[in-house]
Amino acid sequence: MAKAAVVMGSKSDFEVCAPAVKILEKFGIECEIRVLSAHRTPQEAHEFAESADKNGIEVIIAAAGKAAHLGGVIAASTLLPVVGLPIKSSMMDGLDSLLSMVQMPSGIPVACVGVNAGENAGLMAAHILSVKHLNIAHALAAYRQEMKERVLEADADISGR
Amino acid sequence: MAKAAVVMGSKSDFEVCAPAVKILEKFGIECEIRVLSAHRTPQEAHEFAESADKNGIEVIIAAAGKAAHLGGVIAASTLLPVVGLPIKSSMMDGLDSLLSMVQMPSGIPVACVGVNAGENAGLMAAHILSVKHLNIAHALAAYRQEMKERVLEADADISGR
Amino acid sequence: MAKAAVVMGSKSDFEVCAPAVKILEKFGIECEIRVLSAHRTPQEAHEFAESADKNGIEVIIAAAGKAAHLGGVIAASTLLPVVGLPIKSSMMDGLDSLLSMVQMPSGIPVACVGVNAGENAGLMAAHILSVKHLNIAHALAAYRQEMKERVLEADADISGR
Amino acid sequence: MAKAAVVMGSKSDFEVCAPAVKILEKFGIECEIRVLSAHRTPQEAHEFAESADKNGIEVIIAAAGKAAHLGGVIAASTLLPVVGLPIKSSMMDGLDSLLSMVQMPSGIPVACVGVNAGENAGLMAAHILSVKHLNIAHALAAYRQEMKERVLEADADISGR
Amino acid sequence: MAKAAVVMGSKSDFEVCAPAVKILEKFGIECEIRVLSAHRTPQEAHEFAESADKNGIEVIIAAAGKAAHLGGVIAASTLLPVVGLPIKSSMMDGLDSLLSMVQMPSGIPVACVGVNAGENAGLMAAHILSVKHLNIAHALAAYRQEMKERVLEADADISGR
Amino acid sequence: MAKAAVVMGSKSDFEVCAPAVKILEKFGIECEIRVLSAHRTPQEAHEFAESADKNGIEVIIAAAGKAAHLGGVIAASTLLPVVGLPIKSSMMDGLDSLLSMVQMPSGIPVACVGVNAGENAGLMAAHILSVKHLNIAHALAAYRQEMKERVLEADADISGR
Amino acid sequence: MAKAAVVMGSKSDFEVCAPAVKILEKFGIECEIRVLSAHRTPQEAHEFAESADKNGIEVIIAAAGKAAHLGGVIAASTLLPVVGLPIKSSMMDGLDSLLSMVQMPSGIPVACVGVNAGENAGLMAAHILSVKHLNIAHALAAYRQEMKERVLEADADISGR
Amino acid sequence: MAKAAVVMGSKSDFEVCAPAVKILEKFGIECEIRVLSAHRTPQEAHEFAESADKNGIEVIIAAAGKAAHLGGVIAASTLLPVVGLPIKSSMMDGLDSLLSMVQMPSGIPVACVGVNAGENAGLMAAHILSVKHLNIAHALAAYRQEMKERVLEADADISGR
Repeated sequence: MAKAAVVMGSKSDFEVCAPAVKILEKFGIECEIRVLSAHRTPQEAHEFAESADKNGIEVIIAAAGKAAHLGGVIAASTLLPVVGLPIKSSMMDGLDSLLSMVQMPSGIPVACVGVNAGENAGLMAAHILSVKHLNIAHALAAYRQEMKERVLEADADISGR
Repeated sequence: MAKAAVVMGSKSDFEVCAPAVKILEKFGIECEIRVLSAHRTPQEAHEFAESADKNGIEVIIAAAGKAAHLGGVIAASTLLPVVGLPIKSSMMDGLDSLLSMVQMPSGIPVACVGVNAGENAGLMAAHILSVKHLNIAHALAAYRQEMKERVLEADADISGR
Repeated sequence: MAKAAVVMGSKSDFEVCAPAVKILEKFGIECEIRVLSAHRTPQEAHEFAESADKNGIEVIIAAAGKAAHLGGVIAASTLLPVVGLPIKSSMMDGLDSLLSMVQMPSGIPVACVGVNAGENAGLMAAHILSVKHLNIAHALAAYRQEMKERVLEADADISGR
Repeated sequence: MAKAAVVMGSKSDFEVCAPAVKILEKFGIECEIRVLSAHRTPQEAHEFAESADKNGIEVIIAAAGKAAHLGGVIAASTLLPVVGLPIKSSMMDGLDSLLSMVQMPSGIPVACVGVNAGENAGLMAAHILSVKHLNIAHALAAYRQEMKERVLEADADISGR
Repeated sequence: MAKAAVVMGSKSDFEVCAPAVKILEKFGIECEIRVLSAHRTPQEAHEFAESADKNGIEVIIAAAGKAAHLGGVIAASTLLPVVGLPIKSSMMDGLDSLLSMVQMPSGIPVACVGVNAGENAGLMAAHILSVKHLNIAHALAAYRQEMKERVLEADADISGR
Repeated sequence: MAKAAVVMGSKSDFEVCAPAVKILEKFGIECEIRVLSAHRTPQEAHEFAESADKNGIEVIIAAAGKAAHLGGVIAASTLLPVVGLPIKSSMMDGLDSLLSMVQMPSGIPVACVGVNAGENAGLMAAHILSVKHLNIAHALAAYRQEMKERVLEADADISGR
Repeated sequence: MAKAAVVMGSKSDFEVCAPAVKILEKFGIECEIRVLSAHRTPQEAHEFAESADKNGIEVIIAAAGKAAHLGGVIAASTLLPVVGLPIKSSMMDGLDSLLSMVQMPSGIPVACVGVNAGENAGLMAAHILSVKHLNIAHALAAYRQEMKERVLEADADISGR
Repeated sequence: MAKAAVVMGSKSDFEVCAPAVKILEKFGIECEIRVLSAHRTPQEAHEFAESADKNGIEVIIAAAGKAAHLGGVIAASTLLPVVGLPIKSSMMDGLDSLLSMVQMPSGIPVACVGVNAGENAGLMAAHILSVKHLNIAHALAAYRQEMKERVLEADADISGR
């Protein structure tokens, strides 16, 4: 069974992370959920990241707002792929969080999804895991088919075709 | 042997993609390099994406500038993880490319790295592949060790310690 | 009779598109309304665009938010003029949608109107059609006259002249 | 024979407009080129716009930088479709020009292309004219085919396929 | 008696203009209030501007939102000083309006105040008129004294001094 | 006993400053609270700054919105360290206030914290004072421990560990 | 004879101010040029502003870059109209300077022109002075006529008309 | 003797840090210069920060570009005041670095100076140290006097007074 972690900088970020957790669970991916702060609990964050691999985790979603360092701090202490989920907080609809996550210096990348894009963070983790876990690829294919059908239904509704 | 693809929207994007290719080759990852335009060759881009999986490709890097649709267009036609590499072209140092890549709608995520961050695009692809390919994890560990040593040398130089 | 299409990326975009539809209908332009996603139904979007011309459509309005690829994806598969209507969704009042639409690469232009400017999208489609259809030019002239009169009335009200 | 006008706010804008003129000429579209300032020659700009229709012009490209009012000022005095070409001048790579052009108030739309996108301005004018002039649709189809072939050649070069 | 005009692009801008009118009236400045659109009533706007001087107007406040051309269009047809009041409407808290007003090309300046800064627009008009009308300088001095006293009272309240 | 001042540009800024005051009081730092405007009471602001040192003040927090000059104006008349607290008011979530505070010319720095970050302004003042006052260092250490424990509790709650 | 002052924050700003000085001299306006820093020489700046009126100055142009407080600091100590000239220095092509100048709090307005728009700063000062000095209105009329003729010549050149 | 540290994320940041070092040395402040990366050498950065206090350091300047986490990462592991120096690298003239540094979450502030403002970083460190070290206050007073005299000289030069 595949395993992912969803790490957030504070409890108040949970709402944005929930759709990521929901996707992971829907796809049968074990999910460890943590509150770890790059600044308030730096050693705990480091220890989590350093041992994530040994604890069976294969991909990490890191969610944070403002000067969102959590993704980078986690990525600095693990070789696992880190998906960054920037959270809209105080400035310019999350542009601060987005730039703090995506503009990582050469050597330690974070794979950033859109601002507050919890569902896409979960899906990106699933796409990454699907490279190894064939069943997740199947779950993703089914999910896409559902999405497509919802669009086709909406099209039928609106176009009257 | 792991296999990745590096797809760019035009030949002029090659310079930004070159460090990604270099990382992939350094890590022993087979690398298919393509020029495919979301707008000028939409069917070719779609066909590439749709058959990438069957052709053994396990992760795709998509690089584009301006209204950088290539990442999204590729991602829409494959279940493989897509790493988006936004290229600085005409506006606000690539903010247009970044937002066009990272702000994907729910359902079809692109894993974005920083603007013109070719090396990080290559490394993120390697991190993703390392979930399945243990040798790539080893190569990443060695790469990090080298980076760390270069920083320590610079520190010794500058601090005189 | 002139014919236009209004295509939106999701059903929730309908509210912003409604003023465009209203203008088209007011001017006696036949209007096909579709929900087609560049990412969730890429083949349907391509097929729509490729056959639009044969189905009598003469201009297409494409509305989308976030990384708004729909305009570009439609434009890539048709020679008809495409009017882009960027929708305000999550970031910076729609700057992401605007840049994703307007900053098209050389070769495949999209004619962008303002963020959430549904009425202007409809009017721009009408201006384009008026090049061929004289009756639409007359309808536009009447519409401008009405607008002018409303401003003059407001001026009379406020200035007390 | 189809006829377009390319209007620019100052002589120094000619370089950005040149690719638009080149496209129009390549497609056999008669092209009137004018220097008219919304602020320095407002009456001349108004008179040009008001009589453009009678002079056989069917579409107008308006190019301007900074607080780029030319597109709006022209559009206010004609019913012809106006394509706005924002020019990069002093601020934020032309964001001032882009917003000044694209964010037109309800009622008087300008069809904006990307910053400094002279070629796309010319092509958009051609797409608009192609609704009426079948030969321009053919020219556009040929142009797309050439573009596609150039991408395929670049792909062959780079991919070694 | 000094005379100013407050011109707005649409009736809905009145709320932002009201503090300007209030300041002008408080200072005994005659105030002509007009609704004139740069795009919907371009000739009326031009005629107003061209004859403002003859009608005894000595300074003009022009308020508009989005692609706020009104200030520039008025300024192009008069030699009177024009104070631009950018109105927050749809994008980035009025950045579009601000840039459309303040970034005027060389030759035709607009004196811009802050976004939605109705009171400051009125005060700036008064500062300009005070160059000629000594009584307005006195009114401004009294106004500053009142403001100062309000700050000192607030300071006394909060500091308990 | 250490002593700080919290200066704000208008009474309405008090709400954002309150968390700074609360931190200072919690840490046993004497706190002078003032309303002083860089523009409405420039001489009072100057006199406050010039005499702050003699009045026993060791660090000054200056809070202001829009074109937030207060920090710079205070810093220009004292050698004490000035912490700038930019307040979100009308534009782009306080980007105007932030840039007006942080982008000080060479020679007169202001130590800026985040937009509306009242608590951090108070903490930064405490960090500065702790260089001299050992008891404040102890209070900061205790505060960090409390913060850490709250994160660990949230982590225990959410992770179920 | 009318009299204006051009004040700049540092000697390096002279190049941007030079076109303002040139306009003032061309129009026969006496021009006092000063280097005064809001932060390095706050008292000198205050004294200049406070006595400007008595020294016969009727309008002040204040030019500064980065956190451009000079306009506001001058305006706080005089009732004369202050024209703000934001200078492009380090950030986002002068957006920091522009916002620091234009976003003044209620009560103390600065009349801002575009970034680096030295000529427009000079012209705006002239427009303001023309309210009182009829000869400056004549000079402005002549200047506009010259500008218009240059545009018409450029139009003749380019259009071949 | 007072002691400060200047920490930079990579050797290439030295040029921007040099003016800070120069100020510190000019003021007789002992200066430890280090290259430490938040991401490439996270443990070394942590160890430096954790022991800085014991090593006699009283204030730390942290300089970094892009997603500039160094300030926050250092601040998380020390109670010493941390001055953040954002470095202009790839995006929007350093807006990414500035937001990544200044927008710290509640609890762990960084005292940010302007983008590339090396001299101001050094001066802010000196202002902070001057709270404890009287000789540094004297050095700052002398520095300000020198700056003032340079402005007065420039004023004399330019104004001819």
